[in-house]
Amino acid sequence: MDQRIRARYSIDTAQSPERAAEVIAGEQSTGTFTRVPGETDELRERHGARVESVTPAGEGTCEVEISWPVSNLGPSLPNLLATVAGNLWELKQFTGLRLLDLKLPPVFLERYQGPQFGVAGTRRLCGVEGRPVIGTIIKPSVGLTPEETAGLVRRLAGGGIDFIKDDELQCDGPHCPFEARLAAVMRVLHEHAGRTGKMVMYAANITGEIDEMLRRHDQVVAAGGTCVMVSIHSVGLPAVAALRRAAAVPVHAHRNGWGLLGRSRDIAVSFVAWQKLWRLAGVDHVHCNGIANKFWEPDESVIASARECLKPMFDVPGKGCEIMPVFSSGQTARQAPPTFAALGTTDLIFAAGGGIMAHPGGAAAGVLSLRQAWEAAVQGIPLDAYAATHPELRAALDRFQ
Amino acid sequence: MDQRIRARYSIDTAQSPERAAEVIAGEQSTGTFTRVPGETDELRERHGARVESVTPAGEGTCEVEISWPVSNLGPSLPNLLATVAGNLWELKQFTGLRLLDLKLPPVFLERYQGPQFGVAGTRRLCGVEGRPVIGTIIKPSVGLTPEETAGLVRRLAGGGIDFIKDDELQCDGPHCPFEARLAAVMRVLHEHAGRTGKMVMYAANITGEIDEMLRRHDQVVAAGGTCVMVSIHSVGLPAVAALRRAAAVPVHAHRNGWGLLGRSRDIAVSFVAWQKLWRLAGVDHVHCNGIANKFWEPDESVIASARECLKPMFDVPGKGCEIMPVFSSGQTARQAPPTFAALGTTDLIFAAGGGIMAHPGGAAAGVLSLRQAWEAAVQGIPLDAYAATHPELRAALDRFQ
Repeated sequence: MDQRIRARYSIDTAQSPERAAEVIAGEQSTGTFTRVPGETDELRERHGARVESVTPAGEGTCEVEISWPVSNLGPSLPNLLATVAGNLWELKQFTGLRLLDLKLPPVFLERYQGPQFGVAGTRRLCGVEGRPVIGTIIKPSVGLTPEETAGLVRRLAGGGIDFIKDDELQCDGPHCPFEARLAAVMRVLHEHAGRTGKMVMYAANITGEIDEMLRRHDQVVAAGGTCVMVSIHSVGLPAVAALRRAAAVPVHAHRNGWGLLGRSRDIAVSFVAWQKLWRLAGVDHVHCNGIANKFWEPDESVIASARECLKPMFDVPGKGCEIMPVFSSGQTARQAPPTFAALGTTDLIFAAGGGIMAHPGGAAAGVLSLRQAWEAAVQGIPLDAYAATHPELRAALDRFQ
Repeated sequence: MDQRIRARYSIDTAQSPERAAEVIAGEQSTGTFTRVPGETDELRERHGARVESVTPAGEGTCEVEISWPVSNLGPSLPNLLATVAGNLWELKQFTGLRLLDLKLPPVFLERYQGPQFGVAGTRRLCGVEGRPVIGTIIKPSVGLTPEETAGLVRRLAGGGIDFIKDDELQCDGPHCPFEARLAAVMRVLHEHAGRTGKMVMYAANITGEIDEMLRRHDQVVAAGGTCVMVSIHSVGLPAVAALRRAAAVPVHAHRNGWGLLGRSRDIAVSFVAWQKLWRLAGVDHVHCNGIANKFWEPDESVIASARECLKPMFDVPGKGCEIMPVFSSGQTARQAPPTFAALGTTDLIFAAGGGIMAHPGGAAAGVLSLRQAWEAAVQGIPLDAYAATHPELRAALDRFQ
């Protein structure tokens, strides 16, 4: 019995929704704009995409579910993209089309490895349980030398941070070459670990050509690093899958460029669908924006993405491919309680840039303020009350209004 | 003197356009939402992005040009994406943002190879001069066995076609495995070449994981094939660059999924900007849709894309990275004259699926009708007049209204 790939779309059309759904199914399987001789009924029956359901969802909008036999393409992520997210947005039958969700058959697990570390592995490497992994981004994003970067890392590590990442704009420019930065940062982190027993997770941005990424990954591992970061939309699914096959540390997925795919109301993909592709390819963490972020995205969308990361994407025990959502973008102590309330777990990386570095007490106080805010959130104590006995939190609340 | 990367955007904003442009420049270089200690004036001067111009373009819309020192990132395409097309679309300062064009400094030519074959190399391999390369797509897109595919290829080759491509939905499914299809098709094409001296260019869809693509490329070359096809948005820039480094035949770029990036009026990239990235990475042909296509895209957008492919993207003699645009989507004999009129050249691949296979005289007559239509176009003779002495064209005009 052939396994099927299922995709759910929201479509805006002036046509009959049933007819519009058939156009997708035809265009994305056996059809073209005119029936050609080889397109027999038997071939259509065996290989055609099937309209599983059409549900009206308000004026001119409907939700449709389409399915494909996996044997049309095999369990291949790049070819899956061409099928479920290929020429669809070109069709003039629609004024709007959004890919809402995807359900892949388990045969994809035979080809792809999924996340290697996920939540538990990341917690183990960070030595953090019972609260979020508190993280930060090196700022200024670009312009610091390797030694300046390492100096900042020293202050942050001293402040008790769990996780530090390069900015997505910083990778291997001549002013701050990857190898020199990695060496300088790891020297500081090893010194810190020697003193404290805690190895801070450093997500080194290895984004680049495939050979560069694999080489930089090996350099990170050789230097005793515990994470690599990639800008997933800059490198593509095959590069991530290749990295995963070689990876000895968690892969931290930065989703910069996501707005181009997800922001439009008319022509878009939902991150609920999109993140599944990258999880299967093998990332361990993915950015989901943050509550009350500095960007355009509403909180409910942020939370839907993050919840989905923590939910199994296959009904196969131990193979759900759950990963750690990363909250980031204008985050400060203030966002801890609403984030915990909405997510119901501390299984996340909570990353703040300015929210730590611009703390009036300095970076160490910034880190402390976030840990205090999460303590308050988990214990259900209002921030202002908790701040009465926690001056770093108090200062953060005063600084970040 | 540092070379600079330049990007031109159209932005919709309720704010002052100057302020909005500064937000992009800050977010995409040294800034974050609050000034942090390390962001000195000297660092901003050296590494900050610069607003080069702000030009009002009607109500609430303006065009801005931003530039970056290439030393922020080095000549790296994946890192370029994070810089010029990264978190920009997340910014709430804009209701709309479109990347219109890109100008890269020549230092990128030291890292990337650009197209290996381009127009001249493709013409040489196809043995076609003075007219477009006439092509077609195997249809039905999926469902044919390797032997059925080869049977269709036999009919098309017999009809005088120059170029045949797999559909982007057909790659390596269990019903039509890549290796079996390649072997069956190449057997037919070699027989045909032995009889006629003409080797039809077959763009075999090698889209997949990186090792799969490189292996399939080698199989194509070993089988005497002269082209490989990839769905560029399914595989990403690093995979294309890796393929280019290994490639011994032209790389045919299918842009399925493009609508997701280019169709929205608010949140989009122009193909004029986008195609430059893939050319530099090394593709030789790219799909640009077609005049009066079956999709949503207006003709002027199609023509702007195609013209850009044929224009140098660097002011370096012999290194312009010009490539061959591919016209496709609902194309028939009728589109030849307006395509030639708009483009002013025959340096293109003109591909028709149904327009060939659904010709009432069969595939061979379909191919002939397209060659006749282009003869008429180049000679400035109206199609109906030329059809009076060319029955295949006459039949095509009657069939495709």
